[in-house]
Amino acid sequence: VKDGGRAVIGLGPGAEFDLIRRFLLDSPSGGDEVVVGPGDDAAVLEGGRWAITCDQSVEEVHFRRSWMSPEQIGYRATVVALSDLAAMAARPVAVLPALALPLPLLRDGTAEAVQRGIAEAARSVGATVVGGDVSRSPGPLVANVTALGVVEGTHLRSDAVPGDELWVTGRLGGAGEAVRRLLAGDAVAEGPMEAFLRPTPRVEEALWLAGHVELHALIDLSDGLASDAGHLAAASGVAVLIAGVEVPVHPGVSGDSRRERALGALEGGDDYELAFTAAAGSVRPAQVRFEERFGIPLTRIGRIEHGEGVWWVPPGAEDPEPLSARGFDHLAPEGA
Amino acid sequence: VKDGGRAVIGLGPGAEFDLIRRFLLDSPSGGDEVVVGPGDDAAVLEGGRWAITCDQSVEEVHFRRSWMSPEQIGYRATVVALSDLAAMAARPVAVLPALALPLPLLRDGTAEAVQRGIAEAARSVGATVVGGDVSRSPGPLVANVTALGVVEGTHLRSDAVPGDELWVTGRLGGAGEAVRRLLAGDAVAEGPMEAFLRPTPRVEEALWLAGHVELHALIDLSDGLASDAGHLAAASGVAVLIAGVEVPVHPGVSGDSRRERALGALEGGDDYELAFTAAAGSVRPAQVRFEERFGIPLTRIGRIEHGEGVWWVPPGAEDPEPLSARGFDHLAPEGA
Repeated sequence: VKDGGRAVIGLGPGAEFDLIRRFLLDSPSGGDEVVVGPGDDAAVLEGGRWAITCDQSVEEVHFRRSWMSPEQIGYRATVVALSDLAAMAARPVAVLPALALPLPLLRDGTAEAVQRGIAEAARSVGATVVGGDVSRSPGPLVANVTALGVVEGTHLRSDAVPGDELWVTGRLGGAGEAVRRLLAGDAVAEGPMEAFLRPTPRVEEALWLAGHVELHALIDLSDGLASDAGHLAAASGVAVLIAGVEVPVHPGVSGDSRRERALGALEGGDDYELAFTAAAGSVRPAQVRFEERFGIPLTRIGRIEHGEGVWWVPPGAEDPEPLSARGFDHLAPEGA
Repeated sequence: VKDGGRAVIGLGPGAEFDLIRRFLLDSPSGGDEVVVGPGDDAAVLEGGRWAITCDQSVEEVHFRRSWMSPEQIGYRATVVALSDLAAMAARPVAVLPALALPLPLLRDGTAEAVQRGIAEAARSVGATVVGGDVSRSPGPLVANVTALGVVEGTHLRSDAVPGDELWVTGRLGGAGEAVRRLLAGDAVAEGPMEAFLRPTPRVEEALWLAGHVELHALIDLSDGLASDAGHLAAASGVAVLIAGVEVPVHPGVSGDSRRERALGALEGGDDYELAFTAAAGSVRPAQVRFEERFGIPLTRIGRIEHGEGVWWVPPGAEDPEPLSARGFDHLAPEGA
């Protein structure tokens, strides 16, 4: 484990990441029991055994209550945190939800329904709700989920090296399509809606991959691959080159051209699929077994090179172009 | 460790606690790695080694921004979580803050100032900020702090037995006095204000006590002793009897009579002192050393008896009366 607390300087560009960077550089450095400090998907404690992460889901920022049931709010908020554990190849053990809800929702059964969704997501990966906190909120519903897991071998976002292949699980862009349509007030097809509301925490997939391929860097896709690959490139000090024709675009992603649909898949957030780099040739022999076992595609979409930034060759093009990150930015103007 | 996930049924009376109870009874029971589940001050994982807890501080519910600086918001929110670790006699190792702030506060330096307060509180007990999350909020500032610590021996709120003495650290009621005055728009003296804004996480005190007395049940005082003792009584299946004349009332607590001031100290929340039960006679020999070492009083204020509920003998009275809990209740009508 080579990065410790300083992995933080490897965050990608963006105002929110600047803020996180300022936050974390103010923090004291880790003691003996802190193996990986701030900056990766989760922190790792004590000899690499425990990974811990927390994620907030804020009404009107990450979701709207009109989009989903209370159970789905709880389920999804928990998957977001569990996905961070998957990105560390950690097996989830414990979940602590902290809920802040407007008073009427504390009284009308909404709070309990959110908690049922949390418990369902935890149970789906064998984890337990071991505590938590509940409070009245004068404003939005906020669900903050802390998740703890046991790591077997740590795969950081800084572990990519030139020559690696870049792979992703599943199909990308479905959740982003749903969010775009929901924000526009358009109808959403079932596929994208399901991708947004019911992401699968790729825990078993991550553990399987850690055991079957020469895994280097591993991340989960929360902001969109364009953005998340930027973090990986920055953390590893490498360039990421994506082949547009290879991107496994969710069939629900709309767009007038292959280029537009591929961009939709690369820039859409909330997929909670895994992206990883691995030694060249080490994944192909395991690919079919993975796809049969988990029922989702495993796709080689690019490679790691010397250099910096994220590049892609759009479908039909021949030369790489810079792929700018348009991942979700909390600091964007309200309503953007 | 005898209670596991079922310690939850030992919560005291109150609408909020009913809700927590419903929450937690819905949760799956703990796996092998979960030693103490929901219901105590913190959960304990893996052979009793790790304690984990999370606490939310919600603007307009737990504090107002006009009352305190951003640093104080962060500091206090972190102490609230660290105090739960102290209540498990755990040494804090790691802190993960999740902050949701209105957009202007993400841009004007408030977020960083809150984080500095968090880091300061963590550093004061030797813990590290190992990660966290930051988000825009369309409503109140919410600081949720998860804290992890290493436990040496677990002291649960269910460990009180008849015949135990009941002791508290420090002086009670100062923070509650400050909150009452702030809510009424009255001037607040420096002592109570300091008690509210700058509580000390009693971590070293708890570890010292665990090493020097026959400690049984241990809790921290967040809702006020009347309420917190109710949890202890319910969890342990015992009655708590408090001697009103012995209560170490913070000198800033107002009231027209000794009875009124003692009640103010027993019912005021936010003290974050420790209360514990111990084998009769086991504390007195350590009392002076404790007081000299930590510069705060250690006071025997009552005892544990067969029965149920919390009772007290008011100053000047001879017979015990029921002490009703008026601890902070998130489910009370807004503005109450």
